[in-house]
This record gives sequence, C-alpha cells and structure tokens, in this order.
Amino acid sequence: MALYSNYSEESLTALRVELEQQLALYKSENLDLNMARGGKPCTQQLDLSNGLLDITIPYETDPNKDYRNYGTLEGLEETRQLFADILEVKPEEVIIGGNSSLNMMYSTLAKAMLFGTIGSERPWAQEDKLKFLCPVPGYDRHFSICELLDIEMISVPMTQDGPDMDLVESLVREDASIKGIWCVPKYSNPTGITYSDDVVKRLASMETAAKDFRIMWDNAYVVHDLYDESTSLYNIMEACRDAGNDNRPYLYTSMSKVTFAGAAVAAMATSKANHEFTLRIMGVQTIGSDKINQFRHVEFLKDMAGVKNHMKKHAEIIRPKFNKVLSILSKELDGLDIANWSKPIGGYFINLDVMQGCAKEVVATAESVGLKLTPAGATYPYKKRPKR
Amino acid sequence: MALYSNYSEESLTALRVELEQQLALYKSENLDLNMARGGKPCTQQLDLSNGLLDITIPYETDPNKDYRNYGTLEGLEETRQLFADILEVKPEEVIIGGNSSLNMMYSTLAKAMLFGTIGSERPWAQEDKLKFLCPVPGYDRHFSICELLDIEMISVPMTQDGPDMDLVESLVREDASIKGIWCVPKYSNPTGITYSDDVVKRLASMETAAKDFRIMWDNAYVVHDLYDESTSLYNIMEACRDAGNDNRPYLYTSMSKVTFAGAAVAAMATSKANHEFTLRIMGVQTIGSDKINQFRHVEFLKDMAGVKNHMKKHAEIIRPKFNKVLSILSKELDGLDIANWSKPIGGYFINLDVMQGCAKEVVATAESVGLKLTPAGATYPYKKRPKR
Repeated sequence: MALYSNYSEESLTALRVELEQQLALYKSENLDLNMARGGKPCTQQLDLSNGLLDITIPYETDPNKDYRNYGTLEGLEETRQLFADILEVKPEEVIIGGNSSLNMMYSTLAKAMLFGTIGSERPWAQEDKLKFLCPVPGYDRHFSICELLDIEMISVPMTQDGPDMDLVESLVREDASIKGIWCVPKYSNPTGITYSDDVVKRLASMETAAKDFRIMWDNAYVVHDLYDESTSLYNIMEACRDAGNDNRPYLYTSMSKVTFAGAAVAAMATSKANHEFTLRIMGVQTIGSDKINQFRHVEFLKDMAGVKNHMKKHAEIIRPKFNKVLSILSKELDGLDIANWSKPIGGYFINLDVMQGCAKEVVATAESVGLKLTPAGATYPYKKRPKR
Repeated sequence: MALYSNYSEESLTALRVELEQQLALYKSENLDLNMARGGKPCTQQLDLSNGLLDITIPYETDPNKDYRNYGTLEGLEETRQLFADILEVKPEEVIIGGNSSLNMMYSTLAKAMLFGTIGSERPWAQEDKLKFLCPVPGYDRHFSICELLDIEMISVPMTQDGPDMDLVESLVREDASIKGIWCVPKYSNPTGITYSDDVVKRLASMETAAKDFRIMWDNAYVVHDLYDESTSLYNIMEACRDAGNDNRPYLYTSMSKVTFAGAAVAAMATSKANHEFTLRIMGVQTIGSDKINQFRHVEFLKDMAGVKNHMKKHAEIIRPKFNKVLSILSKELDGLDIANWSKPIGGYFINLDVMQGCAKEVVATAESVGLKLTPAGATYPYKKRPKR
C-alpha cells in the first residue's frame, strides 16, 4: 500500500467513502467486543483453574496450625516459597496478601505517607512536595494511586529497553522530592517490552537525592509468556543489594491472571528491613489473609514447573487472539505510515499509537461499531498523552 | 466461705501452704490450656462450617457476571443483603471487604488520616492533636490502631449499660480534637455487656465539638448469643439519622467467628455519603474482594434464620465451657471479696477483675501451671490499667 500522505485529495475522498461504507457494514453486524485494557480473562481461561475449588483442605487437630483458623500474618510457608520461586527471591522476603496486588501497592505507599519508610526524614504526607516517575505509556491504576495521594507524576518515555535511563538518572539525582518510580518490568503494561539488564542495574544503582527513594516493581506478567520463547529479566533485588541499595525495591505480583482474576492470591517481596517495617504495621491492620485460598493455590499449581505448565494453557487460548489482532493490523495498516503497534511476546496488551490528535476518534469510532478499546490517554498520567 | 480480710495471720499462712500444694498438684498435671482473649475457635467449631467448601460455584457464560472474575467493588448483592440483615441496615449501605473487619476499621481511620472525612477541615494527620475515646476495658486491637496512628486514647469507664455517657458527653462537647469513640456495642469485648437504648441514643445525638466525630461501631458479636435469650441493641444508624448525624457511625462485623476465623468475609455499613466517600478511595485501592468466598458464605448460611441456626451450634459447643469456668469461679471465689467476674450471655469473654496490683501475678501463676490467660492490662489503652 502507498503512504496516505502521497494520496491526492480526490483519492482521499474516494477512500473516505469506501471506508465509511465498510464501517456501516461493521455496524450492521451488531458486534459486542471488549478489548479494553485489563480486560477480564475469558470463561475458557477461568475454566483452566476450576480444579482449585476441588482441592481438599486438610483439617488439623491443632487449631493453631489449622488453615481455617486465625493466624500467620505473612502467609503460609509453602505459598511464600512458590511466590519466592516466581519472583526469584528468598521465601523469607515474601509477604502474602489478599486477592489484590494493587491493594498491596496502595498500602505500601499509604504507609509511607503516614509513617514514612526506612530512610525517610518524616512521613511523606508531611513533605511539601512529592513526586513519582511514571514511565509512559504505563498502567492507569498506578497513576490513580499517585493522583489520590497527591503525588505529582513526571512522565518518562519508554524505550525498547525500559524507561529512558539518562532522563531518569538526571531527574532523581537533582530532585529530592522524587520518591519513587513505577515499573512493570516484564511484558510492560501496555507496550509489552521487558527491561534490559542494563536498565535494571542502572535503576538499582543510580544516585538519588531522596534517601528513601523506592522502586515499585509491579511484576504482574512475570510468568505470562505468549510463545515458547521468553524474555529474561535481571534480578532487581540482587542488583539493589549489589549496589548497597537493599531497601530500594518493593516487588509485587499476583495470581489474578493465573487462576481466578477476582479470587486469587497476591504477594510482595522486599528487603529484610522493609519486610519488618511492613509487618509491624500490617500486624495492626489484620491478623492475616485467607490461608485456605493460599493453600489451594499451592496444591493446585504445585511449583514453578506447575505454574509454567498452567501458563502454557493460557497462552494457547490467548495467543491466537493476539495473532489475529496483529495480522489484521498488519494487513490493514502496514506501510501507510499512520500507526505503529507493539508485537509483544508476553503480557496482556497490544499498544497502538495513531496519528497525533486521532486517538480519541479512533476509540470512539471503534466503540460506535461495538468494539470497546481502552480510552485514549488512559495509559498516561492525568489521562493526558503529551504532544509529540 | 469467710472473707479473707477477716482471716488471722496464722490462718492466712496455713491457707498459703495449702494453696501452694494445690498449685504444685496442678503443675504436675502438665496442663496446656489457652484461654487468652481472642482465642482461636476450636476444631469442633471450625468443623461446623466445612460445608462451605463443598458449595458449588456457578460458572457464568458472561465473564462480567462470573464470580471468578474481576469486579464488583462493593461486593455481591446477595452478600450485602445478608450483612444488611445482620446489621439491621439497608443493603445499599453495606460494603463487603476481605476476610478482616479489623482491616476495614484500620482502613477507615487511615483514610481519615490521609484525606479527612466528611465534615473534616483537613486530613486528620494534619491536626495538631487527635484523640479517641476508649471505653475500658476494651479490645486491644482497637487500641493498637490508635497507638500506631498517634491518636491519643482517653479511657472512659464502662458501666453495665455501656460507656459512662455523662463523661463521654462532657468530653466530646468541649474538645474538638476528640474525633471518635470505639464501641463493641453487643456482648462487649471483654465485659460482655450490651449497650442500653439510652446509651445508643445519647451517642447518636450528643453534641460534639468535632464536626467530623465518628463512632467506630464494631458489632463483632452481633449474632453470638450463648443462650436462648438474647439482648437487643438499638439501631445506631437509625438513631444517628433521627438526630441528624447521619455520617457519624461506621458499622463493622464479620463472619470470622461464624464460619472460618481466618477465611471468612467482613463487612461495613455506613451512610450514603460516607459510603460514596469510602468507595471513591477503595476504587483506587482494589478492584474488589473475593466474590467466590462471598458467594459461598451466602449459599452456606442462606439468610438470617440460617445464621441464627448456625450460631446455635456454636453456642452448644462453647456454652458448656463458659458454664464450667463460671461454676469454678463461683465455687472457688464466691464470698471472698477478692475478685469480680462477668457472667455474659453472649460473645467470647469472661472478664475477671482481681485485687489491685494482683492481676499480673495471677496471670503469671496461671501460666506457670499451663493455663494461658490474656495478659493483665491488655484490655486497657497503653496496656495500663488505671489505679482504682
């Protein structure tokens, strides 16, 4: 196909008529498709984990060891072990939460607001100004947390290797009000890239003006390969330890897109000192999260090999969908110089960039024919895509 | 038995020898009894709810309605209805949480700290001074939340009808830094009393210097009758509405001591405005709590009649234990004028007051023969029992 920019006005008018006819045709089909980001897993995917509900819970004669009873603030040992294997950390670095890693992230930052964190001079809420770096495009729910907590967001462009580290380093070196950065380091939400080893090491070792700078490492797609090949992610905990910044990273993940989206288990991992700091507060909040569900997940998935095997089944369901979207995008848009899109090998998203000023209309047009897309701009802080 | 205070020194010395022999006998039995407060339900009690795990979860073809999937921030309608019946409120006033009502209470106050609440001039964390009224004796985990959040606790004595309302009214009328009061209004933790209608109405209608005064109404034992008779508790939501203080109360309860202590469902209820305020923040924290467990609880317990019937089974297990403790206390201590204890008809506690300065030694002596009691003073703010 030729570049649209080379079309004469006459050809463009003709094309418009043709495309509008095509659109009318789609409309007549009464489609009801939802491709909005964070889209819910389909029934077939949920069905993969129905075995979870058949797991027999062993009842203990000692009520203190009974999964049905109170107790075990940090979570079951076996569940911590499984998450440790997934996150490549030590089991004693893991804390199990309820069903939401988002809630654990919110909770980490809310604690910092109220109590500060290790290295803080005062509770973050008492600072004149708080800022966070947000690699963009990124995850809207991370941005919502910052907005709610009145943390100013500074957008940093993503490259194919992760955030633009020259910019990140120069910002954090100078500005002590920058307290952290949001990262989805593997199959990043929404661009699908995985941070390079160099980016991870630079994040871990960079000099920060804030003594209590934190990396919010949302490793939501750590086991979400779409194909046989996978990307490798450098170990952030190790990198931070090697750089003497042990307390810098907080790691999160969950089983939400492994088992049941709404009824899975979430976990975080962090340094010993952060761990103790977190538990001291958590111990006032709660007696512990649902151990029956923790036990079920370990019994059902067993170990890392079990998780990988289970994720292959997910990939078999969603890979054809990715391939179909990618082939349609390629067929319809290749060579026109009006759009770019990601070709991820893992995660949950295809990121489509269209011509400046067109995104909202593209989304609205798609919706008008029954295809729901993530709202334009949702992947940017304050829902605003910076002009290029 | 005669009053010990009438004993001669000689008789007391003889008694001491006799009691020490008795103690040595107990020691030789190698007892391992745990009567610490908040004690874990026994295996037999947990077994009452094993049917929960046999509930079949219906799978929907529409992923948006599927209990396994993301969504439904406030909880399932049917679960909200069940908790509405328990708390005597409207279903639309109920928000379902995870497995911990304690976490919901912490979360309400943490939100007030960070964002204020309806009627606040500023976030509570920005106030010079924050105070809460704590009817004593009370629940240590309430006090821990205040300590963590740097909220000064003012002890208010409990009477047989609830907190001393003359004192409460005079304190809150004058001091705008008093932002709230902790209440366990039914079968109060640990004295077992239920607030009188008059106390509830006075709490609801009293004039408070703080415009954002809140009642933390922890109705943990709302369905926990030990005998056929029950106590009635005046409806705090209605009382507050009648007094024009709609936003004053936050109600909490959970199924922790109904089904599985560590894997149940918690809920809160509050006014429409508080509700919207809470959800606005909760919607940033999480996508929603575990609907599978919510569904299971409704399927298993069905309705209020089902809950009551289930609680009768609990009572059959624990009533004999209460009766045994009460009969031993009566047999050993009646008429000596050295101790007073509660005779609750519901809840989970027997409160034993001993002579001034003796509590710690009583607890230590019991522990030395294998009987664990709640630490002396735990039911008082800062773990200190005021001198009488």
